Amino acid sequence: MKLHELIKDLRESADTKIVLVVADGLGGLPLEPGGKTELETAKTPNLDALVREGVCGLSLPVLPGITPGSGPGHLGLFGYDPLEYRIGRGILEALGINFKVGPREVAVRGNFCSVDDSGLITDRRAGRPTTERCAAMCQKLQQIRLPAVEIFVEPVREHRFVVVLRGDKLGDAVNDTDPQQVGHKPLEAKGADAESQNTALVVNRFVAEAAKILKGDEPTNMITLRGFARYPKIATMQEIYGVRAAALAVYPMYKGLARLVGMDVVDAGATLSDQVKRLEKLWTRYDFFFLHYKYTDSTGEDGNFPAKVEMIERLDAEIPNIRELNPDVLIVTGDHSTPSKLRSHSWHPVPTVLWSQTCRPDAATEFGESYCLRGGLGQFQAMYLMPLALANAGRLNKYGA
Amino acid sequence: MKLHELIKDLRESADTKIVLVVADGLGGLPLEPGGKTELETAKTPNLDALVREGVCGLSLPVLPGITPGSGPGHLGLFGYDPLEYRIGRGILEALGINFKVGPREVAVRGNFCSVDDSGLITDRRAGRPTTERCAAMCQKLQQIRLPAVEIFVEPVREHRFVVVLRGDKLGDAVNDTDPQQVGHKPLEAKGADAESQNTALVVNRFVAEAAKILKGDEPTNMITLRGFARYPKIATMQEIYGVRAAALAVYPMYKGLARLVGMDVVDAGATLSDQVKRLEKLWTRYDFFFLHYKYTDSTGEDGNFPAKVEMIERLDAEIPNIRELNPDVLIVTGDHSTPSKLRSHSWHPVPTVLWSQTCRPDAATEFGESYCLRGGLGQFQAMYLMPLALANAGRLNKYGA
Repeated sequence: MKLHELIKDLRESADTKIVLVVADGLGGLPLEPGGKTELETAKTPNLDALVREGVCGLSLPVLPGITPGSGPGHLGLFGYDPLEYRIGRGILEALGINFKVGPREVAVRGNFCSVDDSGLITDRRAGRPTTERCAAMCQKLQQIRLPAVEIFVEPVREHRFVVVLRGDKLGDAVNDTDPQQVGHKPLEAKGADAESQNTALVVNRFVAEAAKILKGDEPTNMITLRGFARYPKIATMQEIYGVRAAALAVYPMYKGLARLVGMDVVDAGATLSDQVKRLEKLWTRYDFFFLHYKYTDSTGEDGNFPAKVEMIERLDAEIPNIRELNPDVLIVTGDHSTPSKLRSHSWHPVPTVLWSQTCRPDAATEFGESYCLRGGLGQFQAMYLMPLALANAGRLNKYGA
Repeated sequence: MKLHELIKDLRESADTKIVLVVADGLGGLPLEPGGKTELETAKTPNLDALVREGVCGLSLPVLPGITPGSGPGHLGLFGYDPLEYRIGRGILEALGINFKVGPREVAVRGNFCSVDDSGLITDRRAGRPTTERCAAMCQKLQQIRLPAVEIFVEPVREHRFVVVLRGDKLGDAVNDTDPQQVGHKPLEAKGADAESQNTALVVNRFVAEAAKILKGDEPTNMITLRGFARYPKIATMQEIYGVRAAALAVYPMYKGLARLVGMDVVDAGATLSDQVKRLEKLWTRYDFFFLHYKYTDSTGEDGNFPAKVEMIERLDAEIPNIRELNPDVLIVTGDHSTPSKLRSHSWHPVPTVLWSQTCRPDAATEFGESYCLRGGLGQFQAMYLMPLALANAGRLNKYGA
């Protein structure tokens, strides 16, 4: 990526600290015309102070109108163009359950499904079994042994699980076996190139074994597989930006995304307060800290406006503890918006504040969508936040003479 | 470049005049939280009037977070993508001393250094000699004659000088001979391709001769060379935009940058008042005028906030004399920010005002960073200023039917 080459050329070392706080799904919408968003409703004296001293704006995670998942949302914030770096579904599922995928592995998302006596699918989600049943079925599948590959089967939730194949020359250009409709048999796996044909061969045998083992276990008596994906080769943040980066995340998906770009994933405890305490302990050992806060997203997904407001206020309460560490650059943003009104991720630009001694402050006085709209950072693509952070941290030299 | 192809397709001739005033390093920062920038502090009744009648915005010289040197900063304003058009160090040094480099030439930045009896570098900058001594040493080096090439050696300042090689088939893919640390000998020059091997051969002979000539001239008894660069092939502003362009600059670097894009570099005198008088004289002979004003940058680099304010006020005082000429488009901007607070170029977006009879005025009433933030041009990449200027000058046709 051109921007990364530029940064590699320009970067210089400095004894400065950058803290990136990602409040997942931070952006929102008013419930009623003329109303306020969750962030505008929340009482956030500490974030407001940060806004008054810093510079704010609205981050576009990918492009206008594009709603990102957690993968693209975070890659953008880490400075990787989310349209260039695509992380396969299988890898994201594996990251989400904290399975450490490596370069010799192909990860696949699996679904338990129901088939009738002739093998035709009758329910693509096997009647949404309990997660306990999912785990029990996965345990059965873990018995499958095939030559020349190691196979890992791990439960995710309800009908969902992950299969990881470890071996040599395993490609990921393999079709989904899920026919996407009932009344059909699962599709045969086919590889689009020689290495992917190796994978398809293994997969078809695995599915045949699974069918035997699950026979009689209705409704979870068959499986489909999709999102075949190898672990992507991505230059690390250390390689590109020259920073020692640590991730303080509670949920596996975000730990996995951080590991993907080379961050050290440290034990962050279970609460935001734990994360901030851990941040303090690690302060001297890293240059860049990614702190992930999940609950602004989960309350948004629940459609619970007041709960999201409360979660924002809890985040606000921790800001002074972060500022006490004297970071050189402190950024608070989100990986995307999750308006309670929509109960889902959305495409709306994300409120962002950047504080440093060298930023150019703007007229904004409160942290909220409408203030950020008039902020000094304007509306910017998320992937430019890292160059801005590095510049404000005195870590980028001049381009050209 | 795609944008240039588009403009070539759309351009049409018109009897209109564009004036681009570049106040070098115009953008700034407040010294204290809640304070004003240099531009906001300055009393600028004439620029304010221009803002009230015109449209303003903030120019991003390269990309968010990227601090440009003078080269990329100006190329952007001239409408050339500064990431695509990279001007080598040697060329910029040659431009800076007004040496007219051409297509048969390779320019190199030279440093005098000190070596001990075994040839190991003891001081990479030869104890920073006086510029007079630098000139005297360059005169010695000017005696060197080698077959098939002409060699020019010109002093810059202190330990710095420029070497220009003129000849056929001279490439510029040659490594720096500066080992970047003391205790090592200067490196041998090696060419990465056949033409650059020609250059390396010449350079190694030149360095060997230089070592003989400078023997006994401690501390300036050796040289290193870096930033080998050919004169870049760049389509001229006349070719792309169809304008006859003149540059009114006082400092060699900016004359050189203007010459690079095909402007006529005219004698502009020594002061801003001279430049404006010269502008009037040339009014009928050109369509586009680049007027460069240096002192907003130099005072910023000195960290002298009040002096920068004063230099802005002096610029303001000349604006009526420019407007009296009735330009069709008048733009005042900078190639980058140079906040006195930072004493250096910076990445912060640059205040810009564009006045024409056809612009869409905004609500801004004063020329300053905070007004420009809410201006009608928004935040835009510098390289889009030229298409805007041409459009406002009635020099661009409709794209598509």
